[in-house]
Amino acid sequence: MTSAADLFATHRPRLDEAVEACATRGYYSAFDESPSPRVYGDDAAAQGKAAYDALLGSDFPIETPGSAGTVATERSPYGIDLDVRYPHAADLDALMAAAQSGMRDWRDAGPDGRTGVCLEILHRLHGRIFELANAVQHTSGQAFVMAFQAGGAHALDRALEAVAYAWTEMTRTPATARWEKPGKHPITMEKTFTVVPRGVALVIGCNTFPTWNSWPGLFASLVTGNPVVIKPHPGAVLPLAITAQVCREVLAEAGFDADLVTLAVEDPADKLAAALATRPEVRLVDFTGGNTFGDWLEANARQAVVFAEKAGVNTVVVDSTDSFKAMCQNLAFSFALYSGQMCTAPQNVYLPADGIETDEGRKTVAEVGAGIDAAFGKLLGDDARAVELLGGIVNTGVLDRLADAPSKGEVLVASREVTHPAYADATVRTPTLIALDATKDSDVYEAECFGPVAYLIGTDGTDASIALFRDTVQRHGAMTSAVYSTDAGVIDQMREAALDAGVALSENLLGAVFVNQSAAFSDFHGTGANPAANASYTDGAYVASRFRIIQSRRHV
Amino acid sequence: MTSAADLFATHRPRLDEAVEACATRGYYSAFDESPSPRVYGDDAAAQGKAAYDALLGSDFPIETPGSAGTVATERSPYGIDLDVRYPHAADLDALMAAAQSGMRDWRDAGPDGRTGVCLEILHRLHGRIFELANAVQHTSGQAFVMAFQAGGAHALDRALEAVAYAWTEMTRTPATARWEKPGKHPITMEKTFTVVPRGVALVIGCNTFPTWNSWPGLFASLVTGNPVVIKPHPGAVLPLAITAQVCREVLAEAGFDADLVTLAVEDPADKLAAALATRPEVRLVDFTGGNTFGDWLEANARQAVVFAEKAGVNTVVVDSTDSFKAMCQNLAFSFALYSGQMCTAPQNVYLPADGIETDEGRKTVAEVGAGIDAAFGKLLGDDARAVELLGGIVNTGVLDRLADAPSKGEVLVASREVTHPAYADATVRTPTLIALDATKDSDVYEAECFGPVAYLIGTDGTDASIALFRDTVQRHGAMTSAVYSTDAGVIDQMREAALDAGVALSENLLGAVFVNQSAAFSDFHGTGANPAANASYTDGAYVASRFRIIQSRRHV
Repeated sequence: MTSAADLFATHRPRLDEAVEACATRGYYSAFDESPSPRVYGDDAAAQGKAAYDALLGSDFPIETPGSAGTVATERSPYGIDLDVRYPHAADLDALMAAAQSGMRDWRDAGPDGRTGVCLEILHRLHGRIFELANAVQHTSGQAFVMAFQAGGAHALDRALEAVAYAWTEMTRTPATARWEKPGKHPITMEKTFTVVPRGVALVIGCNTFPTWNSWPGLFASLVTGNPVVIKPHPGAVLPLAITAQVCREVLAEAGFDADLVTLAVEDPADKLAAALATRPEVRLVDFTGGNTFGDWLEANARQAVVFAEKAGVNTVVVDSTDSFKAMCQNLAFSFALYSGQMCTAPQNVYLPADGIETDEGRKTVAEVGAGIDAAFGKLLGDDARAVELLGGIVNTGVLDRLADAPSKGEVLVASREVTHPAYADATVRTPTLIALDATKDSDVYEAECFGPVAYLIGTDGTDASIALFRDTVQRHGAMTSAVYSTDAGVIDQMREAALDAGVALSENLLGAVFVNQSAAFSDFHGTGANPAANASYTDGAYVASRFRIIQSRRHV
Repeated sequence: MTSAADLFATHRPRLDEAVEACATRGYYSAFDESPSPRVYGDDAAAQGKAAYDALLGSDFPIETPGSAGTVATERSPYGIDLDVRYPHAADLDALMAAAQSGMRDWRDAGPDGRTGVCLEILHRLHGRIFELANAVQHTSGQAFVMAFQAGGAHALDRALEAVAYAWTEMTRTPATARWEKPGKHPITMEKTFTVVPRGVALVIGCNTFPTWNSWPGLFASLVTGNPVVIKPHPGAVLPLAITAQVCREVLAEAGFDADLVTLAVEDPADKLAAALATRPEVRLVDFTGGNTFGDWLEANARQAVVFAEKAGVNTVVVDSTDSFKAMCQNLAFSFALYSGQMCTAPQNVYLPADGIETDEGRKTVAEVGAGIDAAFGKLLGDDARAVELLGGIVNTGVLDRLADAPSKGEVLVASREVTHPAYADATVRTPTLIALDATKDSDVYEAECFGPVAYLIGTDGTDASIALFRDTVQRHGAMTSAVYSTDAGVIDQMREAALDAGVALSENLLGAVFVNQSAAFSDFHGTGANPAANASYTDGAYVASRFRIIQSRRHV
């Protein structure tokens, strides 16, 4: 048995680096994003793939208190039934009782001890990063390298960021204090401050980013003392099953109750998330997913603090550019990456209906569409290369919306089917670009169309574009926004509008940074200031309400 | 005009001291609690009284956007109608529009600028501390010295604490950052992080502590960029009217819109708090008051973050003592201070029905009651001295409960009427002590009986007392708890129970510290971990959700 204190000492340097990075919000990464053999060794990729393959068609080795039988619900967007069988959550009383049984010991481990255990869990998850990448690929549909990066290294970084914020927050109050009131009769008291958990934490996973979107909440809740019940999306269980397995293993090895982290897998008909989220024992809920259930959670899980990342309409305002090709290339990449199935992918592009000034002369809306199409050609022209950017379509809902898109406006770029060289049954599509009119088509562009559908929306000019941006984001939310302009005044106006709308802004991205990407320790993901999300990865508000401080005091 | 930056520079030393005190939670006070002429000068008391007297029977000089006519609702517990007339809030659309009109400038002032303005407000309020003390005395009923301390100096300290926490929280993210990703093709970006407000903040004041309980939320919301609408209790308007006046004066002098702080006074029939709290513009609500309206706010003001301090049953577990007289004296003081009309006043005393061990031998429940009665005799035997501790009864609800108390159990100590030497019509009562049985009388002691009523509750022994303590606080909440025991094992058990119940614990208080008192910068007030309150003065969670961070980024 390795003690929590030993684990804390072992991982202290990494924690210190992460805490420092959070304070400066400069570049930092603890987990290498390159799946290269030069970084991870010659055998790592093959071993990870083999470990993943060994899980297919098997009973996943994990125990869930109160489960009855098993359930298998995952089909890869690459056309393969995973057929991994998980314990089917059944008796929620038993699950809740088990979750709570180790809570007091976990509380008594203190901020440092819990942080040591959580950092060891991240270290062990990192050791299984290739296995996780395969699991993320074949549940979300992300291409392998993206699954390795977003689902592995970057997700670990964001989890570390959450742990670092939570540790900072827990330790900003000293464990003990001496209070000496001066005066004719001085008074001296000794005070003890103890971090206590809120209760059971529920993490509701999503289909597209099962680790990246679940780990921040999971580790923020766990490290602050709360037992965590993980309810994965039925389409993306495996990455979180591996997560739960590693959590339980490390907890038990360090002398804690493994049931501090449990895996609650459902048949989609169970509506398990709703049942769990309204349990009186559940005091924290982390959710990523659609508006309907997100809104339902906020309205109904009122005994809990709900951290919800829902949906919005991510917006780009194009005013002008001195690098037309690079702009088109950058936008095309953002539309294509994982087939636009990112909560951060741009959807609405507002630009003057009479065109924009560029280094290649004035460009009409149709010409901007053609420029992006040309960039698609380079990025996606070759099927074998295209699939590594596009990944697979995660579910039929996305396909349906894509099929429906041409009816919404003028098709500037049509979607096409891509044949995956390795997976014949994979569902892969390129993005479509639809031209809309700002005045007439608001019912179309004011709704999120999750997937590879983007709109070029002609406006009365850049002032109108900015006003529309401010308005649509305030009313419908957004995770990201971007602007292209050579005019400093327009950039200033957009910064002001982004502050009003409460959304992060990327300015004139032309190179290897994309609006859909947020870097842990530096970029905040979501703001909590518009309807798309009520929280942010990671700020103080994301962690501060996950625990409470209880004091005792006595005369010395 | 003094700029916000100048004000920040002026008050920076005080801020630094406060920030340091919050981090150590040792003793600190920025505002002297002694109303002595040696501290405040020979004329201060008389000038403050004169300033207060000049307000009586007049139109309070303040403008409230959207008001119509005036309203006067205050009657002193010392028997005087204040007859101060305030603008009567009427058109809430106009009020909300005015509140929001200066929001952008206030946001753009930044954390330091807003902190400078808020610290100047506290400085000016301190300059009117005697006037405020008179206003608090004659609205809450607190005796003058308590009104000066709790309603003046300590309230200023708690406000400063909230400002310090908020400033720390806002500035833990740098205003700008440089992100340099290494690699074959290094990438450099510049990032800007801006603190933005949530929206309009509503502060709902209470009758008993109009400043102490309102200022933390008011200043936490204001300093984080939010306009604040102050809705005082109809019985305690004046202290918050003076507050709003000072806020508006300083805001205007520093070049901001005075309507960033507005005073919304109601006729009790208006139900103004409910109307304001559910306005879509209102995104933060701070409330102190009863459970019924507190629960209503949490259920209905769902567009806002609600910080609510409600009610609970504060509990003392008495196991044994080596200082029987000092224990009785300490408890008697806590029961008598402001006639038990404190949210922190002890109500339930659990002790073994067969008595406790003391330095004066075994004492039965009746003998403990007699010991407390003897202490009351010393503290309250002389009417002129008694009124300085008891203050006045704040409203008829308290009198009704006091009248009803003898029917609840065996009267160990009866309440008596006290004649105020200066105010013939003052309503002053001493506390009553009622003996109850832990098994039979749970319907009595599981409810808060706000006012000068305390219960000595006989249990099957200390283990039963501690179990009952844990259970009643978990179910009904508490702001404070205390234990008396000479047995280290019992103290340990109580600490554990207090962690489970989520309440602050005072151990063996025998001298000049009382369970009802919490010291700013050191003691947390409320925990957010039991039903009595969902927040704490002041921790990170109290401030972190009052603002959001919006970033923009660009290549360098």
